[in-house]
Amino acid sequence: MKEYIEIHRERFLEELKDFLRIPSVSANPAYSDDIYKASKFLISAMEEMGIQAEEFSAGGHPIVYGNIHVNDELPTVLIYGHYDVQPADPIELWDTPPFEPTIRDGKIYARGACDDKAQVYLVLKALETMLADNSLECNIKLMFEGEEEVGSCTLESFICSHKSMLSADAFLICDTFMESENQPAMINSLRGICYAEITVSGAPEDLHSGMLGGVIINPLTVLCSMLGKLKSEDHQILIPGFYDGISNVEDDDLDFVVDADLASFQAGESGFSAYKRMTIRPTLDVHGVSGGYSGEGPKTVIPSKVSAKVSMRLVEGQDEKIVFSQLENYINLLAPKEVAVQLKKMAGSNAVQTKIDSIACQSADYALETVFGNKPVYQKIGGTIPVVSMVKQHLNLDPILMGFGLDSDNIHGPNEHFHISNFFRGIETVSLFIKTYGQNKKKDIQANHLTYNLNTQL
Amino acid sequence: MKEYIEIHRERFLEELKDFLRIPSVSANPAYSDDIYKASKFLISAMEEMGIQAEEFSAGGHPIVYGNIHVNDELPTVLIYGHYDVQPADPIELWDTPPFEPTIRDGKIYARGACDDKAQVYLVLKALETMLADNSLECNIKLMFEGEEEVGSCTLESFICSHKSMLSADAFLICDTFMESENQPAMINSLRGICYAEITVSGAPEDLHSGMLGGVIINPLTVLCSMLGKLKSEDHQILIPGFYDGISNVEDDDLDFVVDADLASFQAGESGFSAYKRMTIRPTLDVHGVSGGYSGEGPKTVIPSKVSAKVSMRLVEGQDEKIVFSQLENYINLLAPKEVAVQLKKMAGSNAVQTKIDSIACQSADYALETVFGNKPVYQKIGGTIPVVSMVKQHLNLDPILMGFGLDSDNIHGPNEHFHISNFFRGIETVSLFIKTYGQNKKKDIQANHLTYNLNTQL
Repeated sequence: MKEYIEIHRERFLEELKDFLRIPSVSANPAYSDDIYKASKFLISAMEEMGIQAEEFSAGGHPIVYGNIHVNDELPTVLIYGHYDVQPADPIELWDTPPFEPTIRDGKIYARGACDDKAQVYLVLKALETMLADNSLECNIKLMFEGEEEVGSCTLESFICSHKSMLSADAFLICDTFMESENQPAMINSLRGICYAEITVSGAPEDLHSGMLGGVIINPLTVLCSMLGKLKSEDHQILIPGFYDGISNVEDDDLDFVVDADLASFQAGESGFSAYKRMTIRPTLDVHGVSGGYSGEGPKTVIPSKVSAKVSMRLVEGQDEKIVFSQLENYINLLAPKEVAVQLKKMAGSNAVQTKIDSIACQSADYALETVFGNKPVYQKIGGTIPVVSMVKQHLNLDPILMGFGLDSDNIHGPNEHFHISNFFRGIETVSLFIKTYGQNKKKDIQANHLTYNLNTQL
Repeated sequence: MKEYIEIHRERFLEELKDFLRIPSVSANPAYSDDIYKASKFLISAMEEMGIQAEEFSAGGHPIVYGNIHVNDELPTVLIYGHYDVQPADPIELWDTPPFEPTIRDGKIYARGACDDKAQVYLVLKALETMLADNSLECNIKLMFEGEEEVGSCTLESFICSHKSMLSADAFLICDTFMESENQPAMINSLRGICYAEITVSGAPEDLHSGMLGGVIINPLTVLCSMLGKLKSEDHQILIPGFYDGISNVEDDDLDFVVDADLASFQAGESGFSAYKRMTIRPTLDVHGVSGGYSGEGPKTVIPSKVSAKVSMRLVEGQDEKIVFSQLENYINLLAPKEVAVQLKKMAGSNAVQTKIDSIACQSADYALETVFGNKPVYQKIGGTIPVVSMVKQHLNLDPILMGFGLDSDNIHGPNEHFHISNFFRGIETVSLFIKTYGQNKKKDIQANHLTYNLNTQL
C-alpha cells in the first residue's frame, strides 16, 4: 500500500490541486456553475477509479453518491464529506490567490484545502489504493454534499428518501481536527442544536413614537423583554422544562483554558467547569435582532414587525423537537396579547455520542495509532455537525469522526491550508481503517453467527 | 392688506411653485446642490422685499437668517421654518412628479408643499404685505434651517453662538397642523426626548457559539436582557428616578380614539387615559438593535459588539440630561462585569409648555380667530420639535406653534399637498398676528413703564 502511494504521490497532489482550483462557494449563487463543476469533478474522479458514481438532488446543490459493491457478505462503510467551500473573503488577506493552490513549507494553501476538499480527496485516494491492490474487504458508499457551508439544507430530505441505498454498518466522517500535528484525535460527542427565529408583529405599519409612543404596543420593546427572560443573570436558561432529561453524570473534566485575549470575557453557568460548559452543558445565545431602525442617527420608529435569531446547544437527554416546543410555549406565555408571535425552526439536531468501544471505533483507533505512532485522544466538541444527527436518526448509524486537519489550518479564514504529510497519512489511515474494520467485522459476524447457531442448538 | 394679497395672488403662488421645484432633500448628499439652491432662493426672495439676508453654517446645511429692523423701541419677533424636505420615495406612488408642483382641487401638490415650504413662504409674503403698506410695527428676525428632516444637527450650535443676534421678545413657528380645514389650532405642550444608543462589547471578534457558547459572554444576550429590564410588563419604566419631578397634576382629559386598524394594538401605562399617555406621560421605546447576524438562515455567531437605539419621551418636570444619567447609571448597574458598555446621547430636548396667556399667544389666538372665524383649539402633542427646546433653553423664549397644514396633507408621504386657501389665510394670519402683537406689546411696555415710574415715585 505505502509503495502505491509513494509511486503516485505527485499525481495525487496534482489531482487535489485541480479539485481546489474550482471555486465551489455554496453561499454565493454567482458560483453555481463552479458547484456543478466540483460535483462533476468528483464523479469523473470516482469513475476513473472504477467507482459507480451518480448525482442526486433534493432541491439544492448536487449530492454526489458513489458505490463500491464488493460482495453481499462484507460489511458496508458509508463515508461522508463535502465539496463546497466558504467564500474566500477577505481576499486581500490571502498571501496567494485562494483558488490557485500553492505549496509552501509542506502545506497546501487554498480555500477548502482543509475544509473539506483534501479530506474528501484522501478518502478517494485511499479507495484507489485499495482497489489497485485488491485489498478492499468492505462495501463502500460515498456521500459528498455541496451545501455543508450553508447548513446542509437539503441533505436530510435526501437521506430520508434514500434510506436503503445509504444503509451501512459503519459511518465515517473526515471533517474534523487532530489534537496536534502528530497527535490524532477522534470526536467523542457533539452537542445538538435548536435554532429558532422569533417574529413579533404589532401594528400593520411602522409608527412614530412621538405620535403614538405610550399608546400603541412596540413589538421590539416586547421582543427584547421576552429575550431578556430566556436566561437569568447567572446564565441559567429559564425556559420551563429545558433541563429535563439531562443527566448530571460524572464526566472527565479536562482542563480548558481560553486564549489570553478572551480571558476577561469568560462567563457561564455556575457549578460547571469551562470544559463542561462547552461540551456537555446546554447553552442559549441570541445571534441577531432585526427590524426597526439601526442606521446612523436617531429615528423614532415603533416598528411593525421584528425578529430575533436564537439558538440553544443541546446535550444528551434533550430532544430538539421538545426543546423547540418548550421555547414556543414559553414565548407564547410571555407575549402580551397585543402582539402576534411566530416561531420558525431554522435548524434542529440532537446531541450525538460516539460508541468508542464499537468495532468501527476500535478499528479507527487502531488505524490512527498505527499510522501516527500515537493513540488518538477523544474529544467532546461543543459544536454541531448536522449530518451526524441526521444519519443517526434516519440510518441508525453511530459516527466515526476522524479528521486530519489542524486547528491552526485557518478554515473559513484567509490562507486556509492543509499539511501535505497529513494528506498522505490520511490516505494510509483511511485504508487501514477500512481494512481493519472489514476483518474485525467479519470475525464478529462469524462469531455472532456461531453464537446464534450454538443458541439455536440449545 | 387683503387688497395687496388679492392683487399679487398669482405671483405669490408662482413664487411658491419655484421654491417647491427645488428638490432640497437634506437626507441624501446627492441633493446638496439643491439644498444650496433653496437657501439662495430664500435669500434672493428676502432681498427683493428689502429684507437684509445672509447665510450661516455651523458645519451642516446653511441656516438662512433674515433681519428687518424697524426701530429699537419696537418688540422683536423671531420666526423659524425649514427649507429642507423629506426624500420623495416611493416616487411611483405620486400622481404627479414630486418636484413639479401641480394644482388640483384647490391644493398644491409637491414634496415639501406642507412641510414646510408653503409655511415658510407664507411668512415671507406676510412680511412683504406689511412692508408694502408700511404697517410693520415689530422688528423681525427670520431663521430658516436646512436640516430639520435630518434632526436639526447643527442648529443648536448656531443658536448658542448667535444668542444676541437672535434675541427676541416672541418666537413663532409655522410647522404644525390645524384641527380641520376651518378650525385653527395652537400647540399647548410638546414632549421632550432623550435618545440614547447603548453599545455593549465583549470579545474582540465574533466567535462561534458551538465552540465557545456557554464559555464566553454574549454581548447581544446581555443587551437584550438589559433592554428587557427597562420596562415592566405593565409598561412602567423601571429606570430608578425616572418619574422624579413629574407632577401628577389634574389635566384636561380629552377623548382620544386611535384609528380602527390600530385598535387591537393599544397598550400602555395603567391608570392613565390614552390621551394622557400620548401627551403628558413619559414613554420608553426600543427602536432598533444592531450587531450579530440578521440575514437569511441560521448563523451561530457570538457577536463581538452590538448596540441598541432607545428613546424616552419626556414631560414637564423631567430634565433630559438627568434622564440620560439615570439611564446610564441603571445600564451600568445591570451590565455584567464581562462586557464593556457605552452610552451615546443622540438627541436631548426637554418638554415645552406654551404660555397661552402671554401677550404673544393671545395675539396669535386673536389673529387665528379673526381670519378663520373660529377660536383656535389648544393641542398637546406627544412628539418633539428640537428647535422649540433649543430656543427655550438658549434664548429663553416660549414658542407660539401656529401651523396651517392639515393632518391629511400627507407630509413625508406620496402626494404631499397644501390647501391654497390656507396659504392665503396663513399670510393674513401671520400679518395680523405681528400687527396685533406689536400693538399689544407696545401697550404692555408702556404700562410696565408707567408702573415702573409709579413704583419709583413711591
